[in-house]
Amino acid sequence: MFDKEYDVIVVGAGHAGAEAAAAAANLGSKTLLVTMNLQTIGQMSCNPAMGGIAKGQIVREIDALGGYSGIVSDKSAIQFKMLNKSKGPAMWSPRTQNDRMRFAEEWRIALENTPNVDFYQDMVSGLLIEGTKVAGVKTSLGLEIRSRAVVLTNGTFLNGLIHIGDKQFGGGRSGEKASTGITEQLVSLGFDSGRMKTGTPPRVDGRSLDYSKMIVQPGDAIPEKFSYTPTSPLKVQRDCHMTHTSQLVHDLLKEGFDRSPMFNGRIKSLGPRYCPSIEDKINRFSDKDSHQLFVEPEGWNTVEVYVNGFSTSLPEDIQYKALKSVVGFENVKFFRPGYAIEYDYFPPTQLKHTLETKLIDNLYFAGQINGTTGYEEAASQGLMAGINAHLKINENDPFILNRDEAYIGVLVDDLITKGTEEPYRMFTSRAEYRTLLRQDNADLRLTPRSYAIGLADEDRLRRMEEKETNSNKFIEFFRETSVKAEDINPILESVGSAPVNQSGKMFKVFSRPNVTMDHMLQLETVSNFVNEENFDRDVLEQAEIQVKYSGYIAKEKNNADKLQRLENIKIPENFDYSKLKSLSFEAREKLNAIRPVTISQASRISGVSPSDISVLLVFMGR
Amino acid sequence: MFDKEYDVIVVGAGHAGAEAAAAAANLGSKTLLVTMNLQTIGQMSCNPAMGGIAKGQIVREIDALGGYSGIVSDKSAIQFKMLNKSKGPAMWSPRTQNDRMRFAEEWRIALENTPNVDFYQDMVSGLLIEGTKVAGVKTSLGLEIRSRAVVLTNGTFLNGLIHIGDKQFGGGRSGEKASTGITEQLVSLGFDSGRMKTGTPPRVDGRSLDYSKMIVQPGDAIPEKFSYTPTSPLKVQRDCHMTHTSQLVHDLLKEGFDRSPMFNGRIKSLGPRYCPSIEDKINRFSDKDSHQLFVEPEGWNTVEVYVNGFSTSLPEDIQYKALKSVVGFENVKFFRPGYAIEYDYFPPTQLKHTLETKLIDNLYFAGQINGTTGYEEAASQGLMAGINAHLKINENDPFILNRDEAYIGVLVDDLITKGTEEPYRMFTSRAEYRTLLRQDNADLRLTPRSYAIGLADEDRLRRMEEKETNSNKFIEFFRETSVKAEDINPILESVGSAPVNQSGKMFKVFSRPNVTMDHMLQLETVSNFVNEENFDRDVLEQAEIQVKYSGYIAKEKNNADKLQRLENIKIPENFDYSKLKSLSFEAREKLNAIRPVTISQASRISGVSPSDISVLLVFMGR
Repeated sequence: MFDKEYDVIVVGAGHAGAEAAAAAANLGSKTLLVTMNLQTIGQMSCNPAMGGIAKGQIVREIDALGGYSGIVSDKSAIQFKMLNKSKGPAMWSPRTQNDRMRFAEEWRIALENTPNVDFYQDMVSGLLIEGTKVAGVKTSLGLEIRSRAVVLTNGTFLNGLIHIGDKQFGGGRSGEKASTGITEQLVSLGFDSGRMKTGTPPRVDGRSLDYSKMIVQPGDAIPEKFSYTPTSPLKVQRDCHMTHTSQLVHDLLKEGFDRSPMFNGRIKSLGPRYCPSIEDKINRFSDKDSHQLFVEPEGWNTVEVYVNGFSTSLPEDIQYKALKSVVGFENVKFFRPGYAIEYDYFPPTQLKHTLETKLIDNLYFAGQINGTTGYEEAASQGLMAGINAHLKINENDPFILNRDEAYIGVLVDDLITKGTEEPYRMFTSRAEYRTLLRQDNADLRLTPRSYAIGLADEDRLRRMEEKETNSNKFIEFFRETSVKAEDINPILESVGSAPVNQSGKMFKVFSRPNVTMDHMLQLETVSNFVNEENFDRDVLEQAEIQVKYSGYIAKEKNNADKLQRLENIKIPENFDYSKLKSLSFEAREKLNAIRPVTISQASRISGVSPSDISVLLVFMGR
Repeated sequence: MFDKEYDVIVVGAGHAGAEAAAAAANLGSKTLLVTMNLQTIGQMSCNPAMGGIAKGQIVREIDALGGYSGIVSDKSAIQFKMLNKSKGPAMWSPRTQNDRMRFAEEWRIALENTPNVDFYQDMVSGLLIEGTKVAGVKTSLGLEIRSRAVVLTNGTFLNGLIHIGDKQFGGGRSGEKASTGITEQLVSLGFDSGRMKTGTPPRVDGRSLDYSKMIVQPGDAIPEKFSYTPTSPLKVQRDCHMTHTSQLVHDLLKEGFDRSPMFNGRIKSLGPRYCPSIEDKINRFSDKDSHQLFVEPEGWNTVEVYVNGFSTSLPEDIQYKALKSVVGFENVKFFRPGYAIEYDYFPPTQLKHTLETKLIDNLYFAGQINGTTGYEEAASQGLMAGINAHLKINENDPFILNRDEAYIGVLVDDLITKGTEEPYRMFTSRAEYRTLLRQDNADLRLTPRSYAIGLADEDRLRRMEEKETNSNKFIEFFRETSVKAEDINPILESVGSAPVNQSGKMFKVFSRPNVTMDHMLQLETVSNFVNEENFDRDVLEQAEIQVKYSGYIAKEKNNADKLQRLENIKIPENFDYSKLKSLSFEAREKLNAIRPVTISQASRISGVSPSDISVLLVFMGR
């Protein structure tokens, strides 16, 4: 049936697979997306939301690179919030609540409108391997489909095992079959595999809840959006609600602990530390007698509700009894209980920076198969794997983002350098240059790079350049334009800042804490300039951030540049660390295993000490 | 988790389950809909279309009774056609093409907005039985959920086994798990079960087809709709296309016959005779060197296409090779191959007219579990089972439609009286009173009956009464108003009908063949009357049909009334036919098995002869 060879085959059509297919196809690769069920493309299998702290930045980065997650999220959003708006702009994080069905539909529409993407429904049960190179996939129907590269994005489906209390059954997600065969083949090829687990809360009937007892969580008054392309911000939004557990709820949950697969040893694998189950929270924070729960609608029309914060694999009767004791949930009706799922992953230290496996050429892994958790983490890996698969088979240079360029760079570098033993989630704290990696400047950081390889289109680049030009012009204006003491002092007084004695450049007063763009716009010179230049909101925001945080930004850039020098010291590909006896034993072992590409990467491997780095530097002749 | 007892539990959420849940709930029963996957409520698992010959009438009947299938179809339609418009109105059959995803979404919205319907995702693995009465269900999670009645609508999921060429795998639909446990329990309770099979064609990528080589099949110029409620008719429609197989295609398909599960004995069960696979058509009609194929879009936006007429379980390579030789399919890309599925059914002679099983009280079966095929057949059984489950537990009289009242009456009576050994599909020829059972008068026939039991609402009844009053008024007008020869003769001449010599009642000339409502409206008296009374299109249509077909209608009514006398002769519930030695042996056996309720029903059992009926009539004292 598949008489021709594809350039890229993507296995799985979740967040990672969908982005991988779109990226490879948009770059020009003939791409086949194989999924076990074409009806479930782009499923949000857990919470109906995109973005959040650090994750929202990733969605913006995906968008700036020309991925679809931002556009799909905007089109299916039911609520928008910019989190952390009261903190510095490095912490601002966009987040949407989404209509689960609409999200999947928009993904399907987006992919169907991507000319080079073909679709096929079947279970991939193995890979075609020729020598040390992948040559395609084998399916459960016995088909062999050839391709020059393969991206595996199997999510939680590889030998997926669902747990609810004492019960266990095979499945990739609730109500869906697991996938078998791939792990076994990869292990036989020499890959290490492990098990991870994740969980999801019950879904309940919104009609059975008493929202009057909960705290309303509305969206932003002026909702923004993810994409730098002209998607529409929301005009109407749906509210979420907040409630909380209590000591009584915890006591009721504890009644089921002896039947918990988490505690009785049935589940041995590790779950996401920062997205723990409710039983885990009770266990680990036994002094806390209450945990917050967020009650999230699943869409515009549906009555189905997601109980964020109540992830659990306790027996369903316990889940029910405990949830009934939550304020507002007295009459709760379940749509389905929460559950935990165990699945195979492959420690990501087996990958290169391109997400290609070290063992098998042209084989890429993206998403939960690499031990990550989260839609955004998965989507960004898919995008990078899709890009790099295309570049490799066309013998182009790889596309790698540095740690000072993107959260995506941090994510990939962390994964392949440090590995992960529990589901890896992104945080702002993982980024050493987070003042550089803001949600507002992902386009400035990444669109030119993506344009250079042919993914981001002309239109996208033009929009980014206009924003850059205008904000620079505005910053220049602040640098060059003076303001008289009598004009600025009333503003300074109003914010409790010391008055100035003589006129001076606007940049200086604007840099002071508490002085905002809104204050500056009270000056006629400024507002006239803005009107003349017809600057839009993005430009104002960008200029404000760059003026007010210029000190921090310069400092981080300086640090990044310093480290870049280490980054520039490449380690030869087949360097034999065993011979360097002055390295510690642990360093030799780790370096031989992970095979860092640069001295900088070597320095980030746990167990490699500064003195080991000195040894390497000396050996490299520095 | 389910501490309270439900009135009705419905197992399965396809066409039958969705209608059953809606009906029971709207009548006031606390209803639980249990499905293996809440994301797949209201799936069109085969072709993306509703209605058609005899089936369109059923959708109208469901709508007239207050079911949702008509409304859901209208809201998700992408094309409307009134089939057989050139024939008599008994043959007019509405049909829509539908957006598969929208159809499912509209069903979910409709059910979520039905106050008494609760939802639960889990696999029902058995029934709770107390004595000879059902008391609820058991689920795969080990839950016991109690109820006063249960409706089973398992579709093709019971021990579902999918076949593609040599491959077989368990599954309820492509990509979905099968359901296990229920058959085994029912058999242990004394039920007979059997296997049936059905099939579905490949889904392909519309972008790979050359529509310029096919014949366009547009919708009606003035599209109508299914529902008698004020849903909107389509303003824009999508085209279907027609192409055909050839001798070459047949020869290519034959190359796979030795690997066909249909022909090599692997599938033993019978499939739908009137919806055969392409290999079946080639085999049975070996003189035909071409079969029509209808190329149906799966929705408004999707590129996925349904190849109607190419249902097959041949190996996927054969499917592909043959389809590539179909005109317009030269470059076809598959989304997934066609397949056959075998599943358990229960011969429906084990049911009463209410669709309650004879063996277990308060247990109802609806849809494919009864050996039927088709969305409309399933939906109507679901509706009737839901209604009757509610009525039974409230100790009300059952709701049974006679053969002269509804296709649904014919369907149920055929099933329980004659049984079926192959998937049962409705045809106009199955109805002996098809002039009475028209698509235009389903509301007049059924809405008052449904209103009487509390299902059809006031609004629906009022609309139907208005239509009835107005069309009667209009018919009366034709009966009473005379037309002069000089006024009517030009019209009669224009249609080649003999002129009249003197004035006479309009009814008489209107009854002539070729004289249509449009002609009558050319008379000023008629058009003035219509304008004064502000009659809408429905009223005009109804009056026209009733005038023009008054002879046929009267005759069928008369026949139906005659048979009704036999229908009125009830047979005592525990009547022992074995004692009536003058009955033929076969009649005694069949009558004891099927236990007809009336002499009329007895007369429809195959193997019960007119002389057996005479014996019964004598015995009953007639």
